[in-house]
Amino acid sequence: MSLVCPAPIATRGSILLGHGSGGKLSAELLRDIFLPAFANPVLAKLEDQASISIGGARLAFTTDSFVVKPLFFRGGDIGSLAVHGTINDLAVGGARPKFLSAAFILEEGFAMADLRRIVDSMAAAASHAGVPIVTGDTKVVERGAGDGVYINTAGIGQLRDSVRLSASMARPGDVVILSGSLGDHGIAILSERDGLELEGEVSSDSAPLDTLVDAMFDASCAGAIRCMRDPTRGGLASTLNEIAAQSKVGMEIEESAIVIHDAVRGACELLGLDPLYVANEGKLVAIVASESAEAVVAIMRQHPLGTDAAVVGQVTGAHPGIVTIRTALGTSRIVDMLVGDQLPRIC
Amino acid sequence: MSLVCPAPIATRGSILLGHGSGGKLSAELLRDIFLPAFANPVLAKLEDQASISIGGARLAFTTDSFVVKPLFFRGGDIGSLAVHGTINDLAVGGARPKFLSAAFILEEGFAMADLRRIVDSMAAAASHAGVPIVTGDTKVVERGAGDGVYINTAGIGQLRDSVRLSASMARPGDVVILSGSLGDHGIAILSERDGLELEGEVSSDSAPLDTLVDAMFDASCAGAIRCMRDPTRGGLASTLNEIAAQSKVGMEIEESAIVIHDAVRGACELLGLDPLYVANEGKLVAIVASESAEAVVAIMRQHPLGTDAAVVGQVTGAHPGIVTIRTALGTSRIVDMLVGDQLPRIC
Repeated sequence: MSLVCPAPIATRGSILLGHGSGGKLSAELLRDIFLPAFANPVLAKLEDQASISIGGARLAFTTDSFVVKPLFFRGGDIGSLAVHGTINDLAVGGARPKFLSAAFILEEGFAMADLRRIVDSMAAAASHAGVPIVTGDTKVVERGAGDGVYINTAGIGQLRDSVRLSASMARPGDVVILSGSLGDHGIAILSERDGLELEGEVSSDSAPLDTLVDAMFDASCAGAIRCMRDPTRGGLASTLNEIAAQSKVGMEIEESAIVIHDAVRGACELLGLDPLYVANEGKLVAIVASESAEAVVAIMRQHPLGTDAAVVGQVTGAHPGIVTIRTALGTSRIVDMLVGDQLPRIC
Repeated sequence: MSLVCPAPIATRGSILLGHGSGGKLSAELLRDIFLPAFANPVLAKLEDQASISIGGARLAFTTDSFVVKPLFFRGGDIGSLAVHGTINDLAVGGARPKFLSAAFILEEGFAMADLRRIVDSMAAAASHAGVPIVTGDTKVVERGAGDGVYINTAGIGQLRDSVRLSASMARPGDVVILSGSLGDHGIAILSERDGLELEGEVSSDSAPLDTLVDAMFDASCAGAIRCMRDPTRGGLASTLNEIAAQSKVGMEIEESAIVIHDAVRGACELLGLDPLYVANEGKLVAIVASESAEAVVAIMRQHPLGTDAAVVGQVTGAHPGIVTIRTALGTSRIVDMLVGDQLPRIC
């Protein structure tokens, strides 16, 4: 955990764990190293997937590496997570996921039985979502140069006609819809890692969101869904801060509207974690025009992954770039991005 | 190096370095673990890139992770290699490379200056080839759980109309064309790693092959190019064995027709390596109908990456699945795939 403000990147000589957190250090790395070098208008949009055109087809393209520790946890494993994560990045970009790649970096000595279990889990997750894994790669590094297995999945989806989503499109008056409970994935990983005995078992929420997104587009007027994100590393707080910054709007969240399972809440209190920053792997947040909000929430609640969907806040023209939360006691506080990590290697 | 035949995979409990070699162990892992699990017709074609269709567009899709050690070497670095490798997999599949992704797994403590140098090198390679890096990801693992940086690049290309390449399409009477010298990349890496003092400096041949491929298609009759591959891990020998097996044909190679730089030949003799198995990162091998061979070689020689292009062998109906080489002394020997690695972590 690195919650104090570190020196600016120019004076830091090496990579910190927090550079992989999805928080301020990650954003700094992107802004100072990657974006200036790879300068191009697609990347500069800072979405979780690229929108591209080839031969008349409008496509979404995304990549994610998975380094989660431990490899197996309640509710999933690195394999299913790698499939769901990339499917979700395509889905929340407004695309129908079509094809995945899978690339493995294996550590010498890794148990063949564990590899088989992970590969079977990936295959089941891909098959369940109807998205085939069509190309792959395997590298092996010496014992001690890896940590069992790291997996990269890239994905291609087909963008819906006439759908244009962007984190820069939230407008004052829009509402913030959250598809369900917060923090399940992060706490499931943490309890597995630390051998925590929680009251009530916590399972990762890792799941493919593509059919939930299908239903949402069916229920909304054209253009009513401004943007969607899956709040993974950095949690809901980081996701909303990113959208607020890119759209130059404020957001006001109602704590009472957010579902947090009792066991997750208990673990967070025990560990001093804020569930707003804990990772999710089967949830989405959508910024939606208020006139479509009711219809979108209603259809989400009919989907198994959206039964707890709710409007949890609204977009405001006041305090651009700032996200606030109104607590159950009626007070209000600012929800900033963290500098570094609450929980490293969560995905 | 693991040149004796190991036990079949079912009796082996864990991953060996040789499973990442591009040789027989890699093929076994693919056949026994990945293909049965991910079962689908695109993957089953065993090409280095998937041919897919979305919205009427015919695309190639490929992924590669790079774990090369050391990160910097004469003629390139892990960054330029990651860009060239994926561009080349698309190009030899008959596609025009269009978009790349880049995903980094960084080790805590990795020098920011080295990351910047690698990212700048990737950007320069991508820009030189005109293929933008449009989406990315960064993860950080703890000190000791990685080896500085691993990079995955996935790529999307647009397949040429009417071009259908496949390693199963070599036919007796076709010729084998090689674009240039063998072994430069592998020996450059090895000499850097071991601090070898070679007579004459060896630079990696890492380079983007897309414009060479463009020229080859311009020069050949439709359908004359049966298949192309870039002979990376496992070298020319492994590549030809794969094509021979998939096409159920034999191949006869002329040693005297293959260019090997003196310093590479010297290093191979010193180290007991066979240059036929050493990795290349800027070469391609093409199986071409004999009537187009002369025109294809002529146009290749006009390209900076094809000045040493030559017909190095032919496809035969005799001994299907077997590759032989006729030595300078006029004797002939079988060139089998290796079981494991000559040189681990070469790319």
